[in-house]
Amino acid sequence: MTRALQSGARSGSTIIGPGDDAAVVAMPDGRVVASTDLLIENRHFRRDWSTANDVGRKAAARNLADIVAMGASPTSLLVGLAAPGTLELTWVDGLVAGFAEECGQVGAAVVGGDVSAAESIILSVTALGDLQGREPVLLSGARAGHVVAVCGRLGWAAAGFAVLSRGFRSPVQVVNAHRRPEPPYAQGPKAAELGATSMTDVSDGLIADLGHIATASGVRIDLRGEALAPTAKLRDVASALNVDPMTWVLTGGDDYSLVATFSNFASVPSGWTAIGLVREGEGVRVDGLRWSDGGHEHFK
Amino acid sequence: MTRALQSGARSGSTIIGPGDDAAVVAMPDGRVVASTDLLIENRHFRRDWSTANDVGRKAAARNLADIVAMGASPTSLLVGLAAPGTLELTWVDGLVAGFAEECGQVGAAVVGGDVSAAESIILSVTALGDLQGREPVLLSGARAGHVVAVCGRLGWAAAGFAVLSRGFRSPVQVVNAHRRPEPPYAQGPKAAELGATSMTDVSDGLIADLGHIATASGVRIDLRGEALAPTAKLRDVASALNVDPMTWVLTGGDDYSLVATFSNFASVPSGWTAIGLVREGEGVRVDGLRWSDGGHEHFK
Repeated sequence: MTRALQSGARSGSTIIGPGDDAAVVAMPDGRVVASTDLLIENRHFRRDWSTANDVGRKAAARNLADIVAMGASPTSLLVGLAAPGTLELTWVDGLVAGFAEECGQVGAAVVGGDVSAAESIILSVTALGDLQGREPVLLSGARAGHVVAVCGRLGWAAAGFAVLSRGFRSPVQVVNAHRRPEPPYAQGPKAAELGATSMTDVSDGLIADLGHIATASGVRIDLRGEALAPTAKLRDVASALNVDPMTWVLTGGDDYSLVATFSNFASVPSGWTAIGLVREGEGVRVDGLRWSDGGHEHFK
Repeated sequence: MTRALQSGARSGSTIIGPGDDAAVVAMPDGRVVASTDLLIENRHFRRDWSTANDVGRKAAARNLADIVAMGASPTSLLVGLAAPGTLELTWVDGLVAGFAEECGQVGAAVVGGDVSAAESIILSVTALGDLQGREPVLLSGARAGHVVAVCGRLGWAAAGFAVLSRGFRSPVQVVNAHRRPEPPYAQGPKAAELGATSMTDVSDGLIADLGHIATASGVRIDLRGEALAPTAKLRDVASALNVDPMTWVLTGGDDYSLVATFSNFASVPSGWTAIGLVREGEGVRVDGLRWSDGGHEHFK
């Protein structure tokens, strides 16, 4: 039975919402795109770092980003919540509101869920999306000669995480980037329409996620470091914390930006930045060198 | 990204299986039916009572049952697994095999998932199904004069749970009913085709689940105790444990049988047993009396 976590918000796709044995959602394309995630307190989120609203928004965002990274339009979320009996209802209300707000950004709604007891807070999120006639954009479509481009922030959430880890609460821009990512939702379906040959969202870090494309496509990806230069804000934060901001840009996850390949420079959509090229070979390189943790001095 | 928990088994509906940002599943009806569940070790399953294969089969079964209870045909599961790093890989293999086996019963497949770390084992399961042109059968369609009918076992899993709780491992029939429920999957779509007016699966117990139908439909449900008489096997087990077997039949969950209403006796499909009638009013009664925990002597 699909229970609770109901904000009352519905999307135009919802045929049967929460409260029955299962939800029913319109999927006019005749294919459903589906992704699922488990989030566990103190591993994926901390209640002293993020409000309940933040947790709901981010949990929704990471799954909605998976749907748009396929070129689909998200229609709905199913949310499982397990929590201790002592959890304040206001926290649950905040969580539900966060899910609803993030869904509202893309016209989706929470259509079902499950509530259970557990010793710590556990969230399961499943996102569903409709392809609206587009072909899904896979990890495996990059070919030598294609152009790699990114849309959205890189390294901001990682900078925020670093700030919070050291006990600070500012600068607020990067802290908020950690708390509430802003995936460029509309750009996923748009890139699919404009011929993206492969695409993914940056959840594990740019190099790791492009590594998935390189492996699935059987290609090498060469990035230009110059095109990935950290913003002044990131450089300032990094300087204060005495770290290399390029590490955040290249390995920081949780910004849920989109990275994709296009057949040539002319087909890179507006709003996207070309950051490299697809070549024959394997792996991901930055300025011709392999990246490993720790910064430029560890290129090898 | 949808990771691992991959058995290699695919269903005809799978367009893109595990390994990309999201799965893509054919949903020719143009509507998707979706249900989700969280299962937590030592709350929903115990590793000393059930094998990994049992856990996978039951976790799949409870979600597949939700889909057929809507009158839909299950096509796919998404499975999230969070587990301690010390969990043996053989256990995970058994779990994956259990999911695949149960899916195989209905022609479905595991199409995606997520793997994470946690202190105890947590499973999230989302099931998707296709309506194949049928209208979904809701909780809200029961009307006065309709006939209530059940298909599948009642009280067996509860008897198995009682046996295991007392430290026994037999009789094997009821212990296995707890470990591996056998929902009558084909009967859900069949009942929908034959005009079921409301339907649900018995996961919380017959009275509780019919209570959901009574509430959603705004009706009273009158059950005939005689039609629900426990089998000889249940009576034997109950006698050995000195409990009232009717408690298991009326309040035992986890058998995932189907209970539905039909407009008259003639429309109750073969394989289903008429157990009562829908009336004006509210609540669920057995032989005209409210049931409360503890057995017949507590009717009031």
